[in-house]
Amino acid sequence: MSLTEDINKAKTLVEALPYIRRFSGKTVVVKYGGSLLSKHKLMQSLANDIALLRLVGIKPVVVHGGGQEIDKWLQKFGKQTKVVDGMPFTDAETLEIIDMVLSGNVSNAIVTTLTQSGVSAVGLSGRDAQLFSTRRLNNEAEKNLGYVGEIESIDPTILHKLAEENYVPVISAVGLSRDGTILSVESDFVAAKIAAALGACKLLYLSSHDGIIKDGKLRELMDLHEAEQLLDSKELAAPINLKLEASIMALKAGVTDIHIINGQTEHSVLLEVLTDRGIGTMITNQRARV
Amino acid sequence: MSLTEDINKAKTLVEALPYIRRFSGKTVVVKYGGSLLSKHKLMQSLANDIALLRLVGIKPVVVHGGGQEIDKWLQKFGKQTKVVDGMPFTDAETLEIIDMVLSGNVSNAIVTTLTQSGVSAVGLSGRDAQLFSTRRLNNEAEKNLGYVGEIESIDPTILHKLAEENYVPVISAVGLSRDGTILSVESDFVAAKIAAALGACKLLYLSSHDGIIKDGKLRELMDLHEAEQLLDSKELAAPINLKLEASIMALKAGVTDIHIINGQTEHSVLLEVLTDRGIGTMITNQRARV
Amino acid sequence: MSLTEDINKAKTLVEALPYIRRFSGKTVVVKYGGSLLSKHKLMQSLANDIALLRLVGIKPVVVHGGGQEIDKWLQKFGKQTKVVDGMPFTDAETLEIIDMVLSGNVSNAIVTTLTQSGVSAVGLSGRDAQLFSTRRLNNEAEKNLGYVGEIESIDPTILHKLAEENYVPVISAVGLSRDGTILSVESDFVAAKIAAALGACKLLYLSSHDGIIKDGKLRELMDLHEAEQLLDSKELAAPINLKLEASIMALKAGVTDIHIINGQTEHSVLLEVLTDRGIGTMITNQRARV
Amino acid sequence: MSLTEDINKAKTLVEALPYIRRFSGKTVVVKYGGSLLSKHKLMQSLANDIALLRLVGIKPVVVHGGGQEIDKWLQKFGKQTKVVDGMPFTDAETLEIIDMVLSGNVSNAIVTTLTQSGVSAVGLSGRDAQLFSTRRLNNEAEKNLGYVGEIESIDPTILHKLAEENYVPVISAVGLSRDGTILSVESDFVAAKIAAALGACKLLYLSSHDGIIKDGKLRELMDLHEAEQLLDSKELAAPINLKLEASIMALKAGVTDIHIINGQTEHSVLLEVLTDRGIGTMITNQRARV
Amino acid sequence: MSLTEDINKAKTLVEALPYIRRFSGKTVVVKYGGSLLSKHKLMQSLANDIALLRLVGIKPVVVHGGGQEIDKWLQKFGKQTKVVDGMPFTDAETLEIIDMVLSGNVSNAIVTTLTQSGVSAVGLSGRDAQLFSTRRLNNEAEKNLGYVGEIESIDPTILHKLAEENYVPVISAVGLSRDGTILSVESDFVAAKIAAALGACKLLYLSSHDGIIKDGKLRELMDLHEAEQLLDSKELAAPINLKLEASIMALKAGVTDIHIINGQTEHSVLLEVLTDRGIGTMITNQRARV
Amino acid sequence: MSLTEDINKAKTLVEALPYIRRFSGKTVVVKYGGSLLSKHKLMQSLANDIALLRLVGIKPVVVHGGGQEIDKWLQKFGKQTKVVDGMPFTDAETLEIIDMVLSGNVSNAIVTTLTQSGVSAVGLSGRDAQLFSTRRLNNEAEKNLGYVGEIESIDPTILHKLAEENYVPVISAVGLSRDGTILSVESDFVAAKIAAALGACKLLYLSSHDGIIKDGKLRELMDLHEAEQLLDSKELAAPINLKLEASIMALKAGVTDIHIINGQTEHSVLLEVLTDRGIGTMITNQRARV
Repeated sequence: MSLTEDINKAKTLVEALPYIRRFSGKTVVVKYGGSLLSKHKLMQSLANDIALLRLVGIKPVVVHGGGQEIDKWLQKFGKQTKVVDGMPFTDAETLEIIDMVLSGNVSNAIVTTLTQSGVSAVGLSGRDAQLFSTRRLNNEAEKNLGYVGEIESIDPTILHKLAEENYVPVISAVGLSRDGTILSVESDFVAAKIAAALGACKLLYLSSHDGIIKDGKLRELMDLHEAEQLLDSKELAAPINLKLEASIMALKAGVTDIHIINGQTEHSVLLEVLTDRGIGTMITNQRARV
Repeated sequence: MSLTEDINKAKTLVEALPYIRRFSGKTVVVKYGGSLLSKHKLMQSLANDIALLRLVGIKPVVVHGGGQEIDKWLQKFGKQTKVVDGMPFTDAETLEIIDMVLSGNVSNAIVTTLTQSGVSAVGLSGRDAQLFSTRRLNNEAEKNLGYVGEIESIDPTILHKLAEENYVPVISAVGLSRDGTILSVESDFVAAKIAAALGACKLLYLSSHDGIIKDGKLRELMDLHEAEQLLDSKELAAPINLKLEASIMALKAGVTDIHIINGQTEHSVLLEVLTDRGIGTMITNQRARV
Repeated sequence: MSLTEDINKAKTLVEALPYIRRFSGKTVVVKYGGSLLSKHKLMQSLANDIALLRLVGIKPVVVHGGGQEIDKWLQKFGKQTKVVDGMPFTDAETLEIIDMVLSGNVSNAIVTTLTQSGVSAVGLSGRDAQLFSTRRLNNEAEKNLGYVGEIESIDPTILHKLAEENYVPVISAVGLSRDGTILSVESDFVAAKIAAALGACKLLYLSSHDGIIKDGKLRELMDLHEAEQLLDSKELAAPINLKLEASIMALKAGVTDIHIINGQTEHSVLLEVLTDRGIGTMITNQRARV
Repeated sequence: MSLTEDINKAKTLVEALPYIRRFSGKTVVVKYGGSLLSKHKLMQSLANDIALLRLVGIKPVVVHGGGQEIDKWLQKFGKQTKVVDGMPFTDAETLEIIDMVLSGNVSNAIVTTLTQSGVSAVGLSGRDAQLFSTRRLNNEAEKNLGYVGEIESIDPTILHKLAEENYVPVISAVGLSRDGTILSVESDFVAAKIAAALGACKLLYLSSHDGIIKDGKLRELMDLHEAEQLLDSKELAAPINLKLEASIMALKAGVTDIHIINGQTEHSVLLEVLTDRGIGTMITNQRARV
Repeated sequence: MSLTEDINKAKTLVEALPYIRRFSGKTVVVKYGGSLLSKHKLMQSLANDIALLRLVGIKPVVVHGGGQEIDKWLQKFGKQTKVVDGMPFTDAETLEIIDMVLSGNVSNAIVTTLTQSGVSAVGLSGRDAQLFSTRRLNNEAEKNLGYVGEIESIDPTILHKLAEENYVPVISAVGLSRDGTILSVESDFVAAKIAAALGACKLLYLSSHDGIIKDGKLRELMDLHEAEQLLDSKELAAPINLKLEASIMALKAGVTDIHIINGQTEHSVLLEVLTDRGIGTMITNQRARV
Repeated sequence: MSLTEDINKAKTLVEALPYIRRFSGKTVVVKYGGSLLSKHKLMQSLANDIALLRLVGIKPVVVHGGGQEIDKWLQKFGKQTKVVDGMPFTDAETLEIIDMVLSGNVSNAIVTTLTQSGVSAVGLSGRDAQLFSTRRLNNEAEKNLGYVGEIESIDPTILHKLAEENYVPVISAVGLSRDGTILSVESDFVAAKIAAALGACKLLYLSSHDGIIKDGKLRELMDLHEAEQLLDSKELAAPINLKLEASIMALKAGVTDIHIINGQTEHSVLLEVLTDRGIGTMITNQRARV
């Protein structure tokens, strides 16, 4: 490679300076969508991005879903997922398998790729260190959805403690309710609540969608007002409408920027955090893209 | 209850004083044998014992096996365990299930009962925070045993960090090797190595055995020399000979006392740690039972 | 002793769990009445109770009286105590002897028994580290009572410092006034003020009385309102009315529970703090005995 | 006062600079001889000297005797001191009175004068915080001397803790033996052992003697060798030979300079510590007076 | 020197006690006027005073001017100072020389004399550690004064950091504006702003003036009200009116006492801080000279 | 810019990961040669490189020369530099100007450009915080060279303190000798000694030379042995031989890598520290370029 090319590389590092300076010491929550988890190369590339964030002084926190992996293991086991109004009805045995897959398989796999990128990571569910407690969730028509819940309260002490030691937390969306029952929680909401509890500066939803598409066009930038209107209009279908709802919740709780982006784009996390290239949809209260 | 009975209770507390004083600030490693895990009441009682240790200033660390649970889930998934020379041959899919069951089911269940006893606990495998790394294990005849390994090195940083915040670690016996493969490790050895790395004052093996039986009689007290002779004699069968081998390893690494006791005896942990009642076999370098 | 008996002992330890958890890290002030001090066995038993509290993470503080010891030494010295309106008139030489006996004999004896129970203790009067300053007290009829005072202000810095190192303070009820005169203070009030200054969760008055007797019956539980009515009714005689007055003062200053109990009951302190057995009178703002 | 006089005062402050710099952060142990304690003005002047040392960053520690005060109180109580070979034979009741006088009267009086000079002080005996433990002492002819002992071991933790908070310790020469008996110790030796345990830079013996007189002349400077020769020669009588013996012990244990001076000279402590005026005898390992 | 004389010296040290106690741990800002800087002996004497303050626990901060030194170097260089309305007009090259002289010559000389008095000092301008930023100053008639500015904001972090390590800061009155231009600031105002930002207890202006002379008489004491009246009356000429204006600013920002004194009086700093001798003018909000 | 180009930028960031990881938390000393200082754009680019190092957790320290600037100001003042044996003879006035230029002009200019790149910097000479002391240097023929010295001892306390607060030190090569004289030191040696005292992992000499040229060819890599042979051969002329000598000194004192590179190459610092592009000469004890 010529010296000029090398100098251009160095310039790229210098261009990242204002972003590093802005986000240094702050928390960035990255939600891995379930559809990305089976792509090994992608996961390695994401792990490298997380490693870089951490080395430039940013505190990354990973939250993950796991729909596809759960389905795969339920099939192996011969179980069928019941669906009620677009949300799964979860019986006790199904929940036990979900729990095992999320915290005993998906989290572990993410911790493994992060370790291979030189990052010490710790897998946690809501149970561990009482990170979050849950309560049972009924759907709007007051029909019970089985062992499905929502977050009741969060105690981020363990996350601060791990950050002090530069460990990256990897969080599964299952947690104990007060009566000792394990409940599964929609992971997009867990990511939003964790981001809010940590005062994160950014929350990135990585999925296989390019962002929010309205009238056939990607919406690049949206403020809280527009986001609320769009949610009320019920134009969007699941799962993208869940991300929109979770984003609004996080925005109101003080998270500055939320990004809904395609995690299959190489280095999508770095592009959003350390360059002025925006991909996907950004929902923010700020006036302009900064 | 009469006042006299209450006063006798208070006397019991006072009798525990010298034990509390001796062990306060020190680490006690408790290994839960797989055969105990399915007994819900027993697990609750053990959780209370752990809670009490922690409240009187002792730092408990839990390590667990999970043979029975693993077998149950392998069956559910229609897998058969191959056995080579008394040790299981573990193929890749079997290992993936073992990993899920240990860190995604058994650890979680222990964390749940501890939480219900008022103790914040954190499930960890060797992967998390790079607690321990593994290397592949061949049996003596140099036959490969599949995804089975031994501990290569331990970094107890995360355990010290959790102890600072009064979180009790709950450790699964699986860990990453250098090439990024997950290996299953014999949990009795993991307990011994963790006890050694933490300079534990006591290591308790809880199983459904009463201790080491020799010539039809329970051996109550054994020193290192006798223990080594007994191991060399190959009188004992698996799994009790593994515990003996692991105990010798821990003793040589500086752990003061090792207890092999029947975990089904109510409050077995408190009896061994906070009263002068000894149950089962104690292996020690100390002259006399103290 | 049979295994069953030993297991019952362990159960007793577990029963103390909720109390240990509730009071861990909190301060308990124990006032030793003068009538208990000459009973050597009792003092040893109390020292054991204090030692246990400290080992389970509670911070005990001892305040003591010393009437009987003072009388003994005044007699040896051929001095007579004058009494004015139920409170002693104290001349300069008497005060010098009181000071010597309290801080040079009674405190020392308590420190000695605590040391023998394995607790490092430090004897302090109001003078030491300027723990409290006093001002002269006149009785209601404005007659001077000699070198007798009340507490003017408290600086608990030294108590916090000693607690950090697990030293138990043993406090005599004498202190300097602004003009450098030593004054003797009623020890029940010193205990109340110290408990208030430390935000103690419990204040225990140990004397040879069973508690507050009204209409020939022990009052087991009393709230602030009842306590004030009883004090105003002037039904109670000294010294129990002083304890009532001091209790009201402490309760208003935020101490949660005050107990007036018979210190001659074996392990009275443990019974009140670590079991659900209540003895004597409890004065509290809480709704129910907890 | 004229400006010139004021400027001369300022010059005096500046002249103290090299001494303040040399001793800042270091410990100076001051032993008050019993003969000085009854002189109120002198005690106030000494308290001012101690206050100044503390304010310029030096850590003063006071140890005191109390022979005259003890005699006064023994007489008041009608007790006679027995003397065996120049050391008092001390029966149990005598010891109880000695203890009361030293820690309940003399220490308190010193704490009071220090408080009036703006210094927070804390009276301690060997019992408090287990500062030092004692063992019984027999005289050379193996005759028992009663409740008289020597220091067995010192734990200076409490002294470091008090120094952190700028509290000046005031130490009585009585301490517990292993069997729980209080023993009286020769205070000159207590001062030497405390100075050694704290790595003091200076130890000052204040008494009513001008220093060590040999052949009718004050010896101003002596090194360890000369001091040992003089002690061996048995030329000196008690109590000055005890100070010499204690000085040798302290010197060997690493204390830099020992001064035996007349405490009745006004500001004797400041003269020795903060000016180049030497009074009395200095015993040192250093080559020259610095 | 006789013993009596030495004792009188010790008395002088004791007389300083109440002042040391009052100011210990507090900040005293000393402004060196430019006219004093060329007097080597005086500078050494001042350095000794600063050293003493630091050793008795006071935190000194030095701010300096440098008019005469600047003039000397401008002359060597053949530059003439333009003056507009009593304030210098400063062109770019002049400013470069001012900067070099203040931070590269005067500061260095002060650091050198302090070092020789045993004090570690660190020269700083507003630029260093972003101590203060400046903005351009126009005079009242809105005429530009060249590279002359006023303080826009102060970040005292570096001063606290240096104080922790007992380093004395020596501050030059030049600083960067937002656009990266160096501006020269009136040093009397820099001293006032630094004193305010540090919550100094005293600010001492040392110059060759005896204080504020009104109607031919030295005003020894002035309160804020009088000071404001005097400033409004425009009776005083530069530079003393600048000190008056700066003093009022500091007083309003919470600095307790300001002293305008003749720095040529030997030990003027010690006289004002550690004795009851007041020299020059004291401006204070306090009722009486204390 | 296209997405592909942006992704390539992100890849560049990821490529820097191993370098960031290796040097994070370590010190890199950068010596600015005097010939670079007048090039404003270059200085800004260097400041950006320093800023980036600091943000990725590396601790940069800047040392600078200033020959050209010194010559410029000596000319302005009408002074001529005498040269003896290739080293300048420095009289008192010359030294005073050198000192002013280095610490009052060059250091300030570097602090200013760093501040504009968002880095808080602090200019220091050896005088400040007694960073280093000097002693007079004679040349080999024992002829005095005037106010020219070498470093006698270093106290890096202030540098550690500044690093804690993320301040970048900017160091001038002048320092006080024991007798209070300021001496000028060869800045290449100051950089070497500072690097050694801080245990720096890298020392970069930036000048207008491309590195060490031998036999008309750039020597890219050299180990200690070769470096010593080359120095002994006296093949190289000043100033490159001085850098070689200083490099050898630093290498022997434990600095891992020394780089002699052309500071005029854009982003030369980043190229050497964060990419695998090596420019100029690297002198190392390591086997291979890593």
